[in-house]
Amino acid sequence: MATSAINSLLNYKTEKYIDTKNKAVGVLHRLFQLSVIGYIIGWVFIVKQGYQEIDDAIQSSVITKVKGTAVTNTSESGLLVWGPEEYVIPPQGEDVLFVVTSFLETPNQKMGYCAESYKVANARCSVNKDCKKGKMVESGHGVMSGKCIRNNENSNGTCEIFGWCPTEKDIKPQKPLLKNAENFTIYVKNFIQFPKFSFSKSNILETTDQSYLKKCRYDKKQYPYCPIFRLGDITRRAGCNFQDMATLGGAIGIVIQWDCDLDKGTSHCNPEYQFTRLDATVSNKSIAAGFNFRHAKYFKNAAGESYRSLYKVYGIRFHILVHGKAGKFAIVPLVVNIGSGLAVMGAGTFFCDIVLLYLTTGRKSYNDKKFEVLKYEKQHTSTDGMEPEPSTLKTQDQK
Amino acid sequence: MATSAINSLLNYKTEKYIDTKNKAVGVLHRLFQLSVIGYIIGWVFIVKQGYQEIDDAIQSSVITKVKGTAVTNTSESGLLVWGPEEYVIPPQGEDVLFVVTSFLETPNQKMGYCAESYKVANARCSVNKDCKKGKMVESGHGVMSGKCIRNNENSNGTCEIFGWCPTEKDIKPQKPLLKNAENFTIYVKNFIQFPKFSFSKSNILETTDQSYLKKCRYDKKQYPYCPIFRLGDITRRAGCNFQDMATLGGAIGIVIQWDCDLDKGTSHCNPEYQFTRLDATVSNKSIAAGFNFRHAKYFKNAAGESYRSLYKVYGIRFHILVHGKAGKFAIVPLVVNIGSGLAVMGAGTFFCDIVLLYLTTGRKSYNDKKFEVLKYEKQHTSTDGMEPEPSTLKTQDQK
Amino acid sequence: MATSAINSLLNYKTEKYIDTKNKAVGVLHRLFQLSVIGYIIGWVFIVKQGYQEIDDAIQSSVITKVKGTAVTNTSESGLLVWGPEEYVIPPQGEDVLFVVTSFLETPNQKMGYCAESYKVANARCSVNKDCKKGKMVESGHGVMSGKCIRNNENSNGTCEIFGWCPTEKDIKPQKPLLKNAENFTIYVKNFIQFPKFSFSKSNILETTDQSYLKKCRYDKKQYPYCPIFRLGDITRRAGCNFQDMATLGGAIGIVIQWDCDLDKGTSHCNPEYQFTRLDATVSNKSIAAGFNFRHAKYFKNAAGESYRSLYKVYGIRFHILVHGKAGKFAIVPLVVNIGSGLAVMGAGTFFCDIVLLYLTTGRKSYNDKKFEVLKYEKQHTSTDGMEPEPSTLKTQDQK
Repeated sequence: MATSAINSLLNYKTEKYIDTKNKAVGVLHRLFQLSVIGYIIGWVFIVKQGYQEIDDAIQSSVITKVKGTAVTNTSESGLLVWGPEEYVIPPQGEDVLFVVTSFLETPNQKMGYCAESYKVANARCSVNKDCKKGKMVESGHGVMSGKCIRNNENSNGTCEIFGWCPTEKDIKPQKPLLKNAENFTIYVKNFIQFPKFSFSKSNILETTDQSYLKKCRYDKKQYPYCPIFRLGDITRRAGCNFQDMATLGGAIGIVIQWDCDLDKGTSHCNPEYQFTRLDATVSNKSIAAGFNFRHAKYFKNAAGESYRSLYKVYGIRFHILVHGKAGKFAIVPLVVNIGSGLAVMGAGTFFCDIVLLYLTTGRKSYNDKKFEVLKYEKQHTSTDGMEPEPSTLKTQDQK
Repeated sequence: MATSAINSLLNYKTEKYIDTKNKAVGVLHRLFQLSVIGYIIGWVFIVKQGYQEIDDAIQSSVITKVKGTAVTNTSESGLLVWGPEEYVIPPQGEDVLFVVTSFLETPNQKMGYCAESYKVANARCSVNKDCKKGKMVESGHGVMSGKCIRNNENSNGTCEIFGWCPTEKDIKPQKPLLKNAENFTIYVKNFIQFPKFSFSKSNILETTDQSYLKKCRYDKKQYPYCPIFRLGDITRRAGCNFQDMATLGGAIGIVIQWDCDLDKGTSHCNPEYQFTRLDATVSNKSIAAGFNFRHAKYFKNAAGESYRSLYKVYGIRFHILVHGKAGKFAIVPLVVNIGSGLAVMGAGTFFCDIVLLYLTTGRKSYNDKKFEVLKYEKQHTSTDGMEPEPSTLKTQDQK
Repeated sequence: MATSAINSLLNYKTEKYIDTKNKAVGVLHRLFQLSVIGYIIGWVFIVKQGYQEIDDAIQSSVITKVKGTAVTNTSESGLLVWGPEEYVIPPQGEDVLFVVTSFLETPNQKMGYCAESYKVANARCSVNKDCKKGKMVESGHGVMSGKCIRNNENSNGTCEIFGWCPTEKDIKPQKPLLKNAENFTIYVKNFIQFPKFSFSKSNILETTDQSYLKKCRYDKKQYPYCPIFRLGDITRRAGCNFQDMATLGGAIGIVIQWDCDLDKGTSHCNPEYQFTRLDATVSNKSIAAGFNFRHAKYFKNAAGESYRSLYKVYGIRFHILVHGKAGKFAIVPLVVNIGSGLAVMGAGTFFCDIVLLYLTTGRKSYNDKKFEVLKYEKQHTSTDGMEPEPSTLKTQDQK
């Protein structure tokens, strides 16, 4: 018994087919099969590399270094030479860096009493009563002392406050002060990893030519792998005018794109650089445009009293964004794509059968041949009403 | 020969079926097919959008700007007005920002000799011998000079050190000093990109109403797309009490969630904001709670000697975390999901066959009809013992 | 009519098979089926957990805190004690932090006139004409005044510039100044989230033992979950010598790997730490090696004139990189993997059929039995040349 079962298990059993000799449905069927095979080979495997496992959780570490010098000459600060230690904020070379292109200095601020800035709407006053003593000025610079300061009897004035005095002037820069900023360069070191494949690479060309990295400047055509970027080139490639952007500030993304087909070898895995403005909005007059922030340098005089220089700095914020994905041959996506393609192909047979059995002129005959009916020799009532008694089964090919 | 092969290739061939007239298994089969179809349509396509390619490697750039003013009054520092240039660290508006809510100033520290802080356990001493000259105090503030400093003859003391003197007092803040910090606001600009679909968007509403972005405050119901958040609201939504958190510090995540169905158009792709405490632990008394760090401001006196003010700042660290995914119709996931569903449906036939051939009363007859056996007319010994001789093949339907 | 259609719909129909009794092909067929089942169960489900939905878009927030003290003694700066508030840049505990291990101070720089540094190649001169007045020195420190400064008549000199004077000396550190830096510790708090599964966890062990987190030091074997790392251990594990690295600087990645099988419960979801050098290159002599940057401290003298101390700091940049993925049972990947596996199994039948029908000695007989041909009783010309007339259809089993 067991041997016969094993025997039967090892006998090859194959589906019986009806060769309908119907060429219309046959061609339809073959066309469908060809298109599925074309889809699997052409689209899934050649275009989409569907035989690859994908890792798009790229891990990246970025180090930046800016070089260049600029001179400014303002009435508050005098003649100044700026180096990266001053105009790059923060100075330690992160993946988000801000390059000062313009600034407004308010030197020698001390804690004390002075008139609030006129641009602060809710500190405007005409009499002392308008300035409630001890009240914090909303969007302002300090606490009201209770006085209203007016230039003359008739005009409006602003409340006196306690805070860092004098307050900042309400001036918007008309042109960038660090004009030379356009010629600064950013050196971007990017180290990436695809953890799924334990693959890592750097964007620095492995070269024996020491001078290459000192002299090259990125250019999409000539030096696509040079990691040194001139600021003016970056803004130009992002579609912006440097001087416009430097006046009121802005944000630019330097996108490093890694598209790696690890089946082709690591030398084919190279970065591509793109540049995009990050603060652009559809309506250019949006208040979201521009980029500035304030920071201060603190000093103490001989008496130990604190004073500070407040800087409102305008500039360009660069954000190095790294994206990418790596693909490598793997058995699971291969089987999933082939298998599901084949299953869809099988569904084609189902639709061709529907055409054959319901839409052709010979449908009745096809039906009779395709479905061999089991028939009983005589009428009977089975106990459950469903299952025929086995002994009376007969096959009848209807003709 | 070639024409006949092509002819045969284009003839439609279809599987021959046995119509068993068995309704029990038939119903079972149809139920299974219906549930697979329900799964494909209902779960995969309607609930899970399985016809979409997913990009969850979102790229994001965040700019923040904090506004607000606060007043503190301490014995060391006197009356002080704080602006964002001072209480936001770092000031340049990154996606991780720290807002000072309390601080401990140690002014006028100079390099010199003084007693180590009493909280440093391994600098406690009773005699000079306990303080080995030149030894660095572990977890301390300097190098031992070799002396033991005691207030009186009987008590314990601490070793004298060379370092920034005097050392910081061991005081824990009882209440936040910048009480007003609750009313500060953070303006969050978030620019995202889904590189796979070359789709980018900003969280700033494109509006012509200039005053909207100046006045609105985020509210889940009323202003779900307002990007300005009041600190007190953020902590409340994260389930924390602001004053508690401001006393010893803490960390809060502002999660911006982008769930974009790009088939529906870009206007349906909007951010959702969530707030979560990042330093919460199961046991609230964990030493991991709280957040503070030290920084210093450096000065020089007229003689050119350095001195500094050391600040131990407590506050809330906000981390803007951006996540999201975008889906867009694509042919490959569609085929994979339909194909594999159909293949599982095919497997249903296999199980129904098992029921039919092994569990029904008519199993023998079904077996005989389903498997048409090829039989040989007479016994023979084939050379390889496996393959029957072709000329002697016969089919026999067992009855 | 409708009832008969429903009746027919609920009758179970099953494919008719030919039992070929061919054991060679049968064994081949079973082997193929077994290998597909083995692949599905063994590879897809046991090795690859293919029944799980994967979230690899991990969200992470990192807080770091460095502890330790060091002493330096240089001619410019004298005896100095360094605490974390000074040697960690930035001090606020981000996921990218820089620890100063060596520095070069240029104290008391003022805006003024002095000779450009000799290392700046394009500021070297022999006569005044070589120094064009008002020209910015490329890669230099200021604007040329028009003078050439030479030590003596015969030697070459450098152009005089206006800038921060005196310029930095061209000295490369020979050994790290903060020798003790090796013993500093970094405490890393990492809070992660898998948004797809709303799962979050921290790398801090939930322990009631308060002293554990104060005393433990990470060790792969003894304390794999201790979040406190000694700098010297980190570099050693990354395969570097600390003193070498500390001399000229470098970058190290602390990788926190979360591999979470959420079906097993949250206690099985624990971080693993790896250490890797981020600035290593194939050719160790690459100019990409080392890491330093400049920052400055600004002072004002009694007359209100600015001066500064410029620091060129060398050190180790630590980048805490968090990666990970979480898997959880889901129905869609289960169906996709089973379904596509089954479909590939079906394809096996196709190949076995090819062997049977074209490569066995009995191929003609198998062909005749497998394909039951529909034949017409007499020749005719159908209107479209494709479809036979239904009434004349006949089946003929060729013998």
